[in-house]
Amino acid sequence: MTHPESKLHAARAPLYEALKRHAEQNWIPFHVPGHKQRAVWNDDDADARFRPMLPIDLTELSDTDDLHQPEGVIAEAEKLAAECFGADETCLLVGGSTAGNLAMILAACQPGDLVLVQRNSHKSVIHGLMLAGARAVFLAPELETASGLAVAPSVQTVRAGLERYPEAKALLITNPNYYGLSSELSAIVDCAHDRGVPVLVDEAHGAHFGRHGEFPASALQAGADIVVQSAHKMLASLTMGALLHMQGRLIDRSAVRQMLRMVQSSSPSYPIMASLDLARRQLHTEKERMFENALRTAGYVREQLATMPIRAVAPRPPVGLDPLKLTLYDETGAWDGYRLRDELEKRGCMAEMADYRHVVLAFGPGTVPEDGYALVRALNDIAERLQPAGRADERFSPSPSRPEPVAADFVSEPVAFSRRPMETEKIPLEEAAGRLAGEWIIPYPPGIPLLYPGERITQETIAELRKWQKRGAKFQGAEDATLSAIRVRTVSCGEKEPHMER
Amino acid sequence: MTHPESKLHAARAPLYEALKRHAEQNWIPFHVPGHKQRAVWNDDDADARFRPMLPIDLTELSDTDDLHQPEGVIAEAEKLAAECFGADETCLLVGGSTAGNLAMILAACQPGDLVLVQRNSHKSVIHGLMLAGARAVFLAPELETASGLAVAPSVQTVRAGLERYPEAKALLITNPNYYGLSSELSAIVDCAHDRGVPVLVDEAHGAHFGRHGEFPASALQAGADIVVQSAHKMLASLTMGALLHMQGRLIDRSAVRQMLRMVQSSSPSYPIMASLDLARRQLHTEKERMFENALRTAGYVREQLATMPIRAVAPRPPVGLDPLKLTLYDETGAWDGYRLRDELEKRGCMAEMADYRHVVLAFGPGTVPEDGYALVRALNDIAERLQPAGRADERFSPSPSRPEPVAADFVSEPVAFSRRPMETEKIPLEEAAGRLAGEWIIPYPPGIPLLYPGERITQETIAELRKWQKRGAKFQGAEDATLSAIRVRTVSCGEKEPHMER
Repeated sequence: MTHPESKLHAARAPLYEALKRHAEQNWIPFHVPGHKQRAVWNDDDADARFRPMLPIDLTELSDTDDLHQPEGVIAEAEKLAAECFGADETCLLVGGSTAGNLAMILAACQPGDLVLVQRNSHKSVIHGLMLAGARAVFLAPELETASGLAVAPSVQTVRAGLERYPEAKALLITNPNYYGLSSELSAIVDCAHDRGVPVLVDEAHGAHFGRHGEFPASALQAGADIVVQSAHKMLASLTMGALLHMQGRLIDRSAVRQMLRMVQSSSPSYPIMASLDLARRQLHTEKERMFENALRTAGYVREQLATMPIRAVAPRPPVGLDPLKLTLYDETGAWDGYRLRDELEKRGCMAEMADYRHVVLAFGPGTVPEDGYALVRALNDIAERLQPAGRADERFSPSPSRPEPVAADFVSEPVAFSRRPMETEKIPLEEAAGRLAGEWIIPYPPGIPLLYPGERITQETIAELRKWQKRGAKFQGAEDATLSAIRVRTVSCGEKEPHMER
Repeated sequence: MTHPESKLHAARAPLYEALKRHAEQNWIPFHVPGHKQRAVWNDDDADARFRPMLPIDLTELSDTDDLHQPEGVIAEAEKLAAECFGADETCLLVGGSTAGNLAMILAACQPGDLVLVQRNSHKSVIHGLMLAGARAVFLAPELETASGLAVAPSVQTVRAGLERYPEAKALLITNPNYYGLSSELSAIVDCAHDRGVPVLVDEAHGAHFGRHGEFPASALQAGADIVVQSAHKMLASLTMGALLHMQGRLIDRSAVRQMLRMVQSSSPSYPIMASLDLARRQLHTEKERMFENALRTAGYVREQLATMPIRAVAPRPPVGLDPLKLTLYDETGAWDGYRLRDELEKRGCMAEMADYRHVVLAFGPGTVPEDGYALVRALNDIAERLQPAGRADERFSPSPSRPEPVAADFVSEPVAFSRRPMETEKIPLEEAAGRLAGEWIIPYPPGIPLLYPGERITQETIAELRKWQKRGAKFQGAEDATLSAIRVRTVSCGEKEPHMER
């Protein structure tokens, strides 16, 4: 099925083209899916909505290749994607960045293996650790000084982790964060590579990085070994379309492919795969131009904010910013992020996410200038209604001040992850030092786990938790929200702490 | 977000309706996906193909609920699905039956737990065992007497397995098989339930079972505890749309939900979820009527075969048949399944699958009578060209005779599964008795693994392999296709066989 003589051309979309050809050939279908490429729901609206796409909702046929053993048009699409993004090898994903994060962790860690993990990782990373039965050493993120938002760990923290745990099989970093704040990864990658440790990056929010002069560099450009990107978030694939890139010699590529075969559907969606091919082709051919509308629109909104009491997060170097993310907050302190989101929604603008302070807006390839005009009208209207909170205690939150630490230690003790349910008991927090946590403790804000289940509780942790409590933080995950008691792992008589030995 | 007062109505599609409403409200999108519900690939064909569907390719918003914590329209869609299929609880799946198989196995087995597994299971079941670190006891399938095709194990085999391994955490059955052959499950389920063992059924090919008088009963009707169905294969959802049903008290439903959160995308596809809602509504309201076209078309083709040298597999009771599957073979023995598939393809008919003997055709909700007319024309044309093979040795395969066993034992020793790569060495097959296999050995035909990696090799296995070889079987998975040598697991000095102890 491969055509070794065929040159790869950026302007081609080999998978989409094959599906289009197939659809035009009027095959008589005796294969799955059951809709047989026809709209059969007897619902005019639904049928019309899906009808044009159904002819390419196909299965593995003689001309459509096989995602799990690519030799034809899918192999070609993956080669073009690798060329476009500058990877040695790229896998199309139909299970989102989740599938990529799970597979890269499963490939890097055998049960009991130790990995260094950024403390504020996506839950799919934690799920990967649980499935892998890995031991994680958590590295505290840096807090960007202007906003207090958590970004990647510093090089110093990474170095300390690598020195304390030279047996680490991998370093797991998330960059950029959900707010579009981005750390310089190349020093982190160099530090790990000096010790032969591969760097695995969850770049779910940064598939566009490095593709325009105004965007931060990409994780591949920084030298990362495995990079997972959601192509649906900031490029134009369908939802669940994602990419896993690999480069260098520190990782076992065939193990990653094998884990992808395990965690992804054996009946992958061709429309999602085709949309990845189309999204790659657009990036490959339109290049910087494909982001101009989004960049100009976001830039226009930023300019208009100058005269409003609503501000946009602007990080201080060395932390970089994704210009396609606009993280707004009310500098008067009257309205929190949820209220801001609701007020925008009342005015027809649907935001990506809100937290206690911020509302996050995402621009992308589909953004049109009219979106920006509508947003500015909404923001002006909101600004007029904003009454600065009078007394300090009426303000929901102070301006970001000196960021507070998010963990008792920059480098944690190893935490054993497993799918096995943990036996726990409830004891007073003040008596918990030395025990393993039996529940998640997530001070909110900022929402970064201070204790993972299985993480050792120290005197410093307890002091840290009391400080958060004084500051008014709520504790997500904690059964006792007042933290007078905490769940810890039950230790049977004579039993060693499990999983801690190799 | 829930409306407790709203009655569930079969004719409603709460999730699809919510997405449609959202699409009609002209929100200004500052959320993912990056296409912002607009066709932006600058490719007339591709844009037209996806444009009508993009407005519902959405994310978790205030009106779209959350698959991983359903409380609104997704919870309603799941309740309606449970009502429609007769389950206590149903989960919508966006990762295909693969996600359901992985999740049910991970929920049922902690590392080292023992499960009884039908030997001819789908690879996603084996992947689930590997991820779970389970120990599997394989139960030999029965061979349908007319066709020699493997179906579920007999009740006797299941009972023997349960008696020998009373500690089994679950029994994993696949029904129907890919050819639409179906076993009676209720006796198997009763046998397991008598011993308190839950039955987990991969019913990927049977989402329509029990929905028409001409279809075999469904696994839920037979009393199975967890049932996974591909809604895209025989109903009309998009590819990767699947359902996981649960009933009874033998299983931990919240553990299954938790495992689904781990193995499925945290950005699930709304078009796929909506298509599940639409496919369920169609089944719920049209009932038997939705299968009439497919049934009549398949029936018409079966009638026309009477005068042809091409036959359709017709199992003998108690094995049942899915009338929407047509498994054809050349009774003259001149053409094998691959040749038949290729000849059909030359005549415009695209089949589902071929093996050494058969070609499988699938009919479904999208089938129209014209498909049947075209198929009969193609088959008549093929039949005219078929020259009966003269000498017996020109025939590619004898007619199915007395089925041969597919395993050395009906109930295997436990086989430890793990993701950990195995250290192996190559030794002569005749010296391998007592060792653990280091590779898959899959005699083909029929393609059922006779040895899984980690499975104990016995004198009986070796004799069995030599018999298959004499019969002309090829050995998939085997490094040495002549089987003079076999890969076995290396045993280090003084080491016990790993994983075999609890």
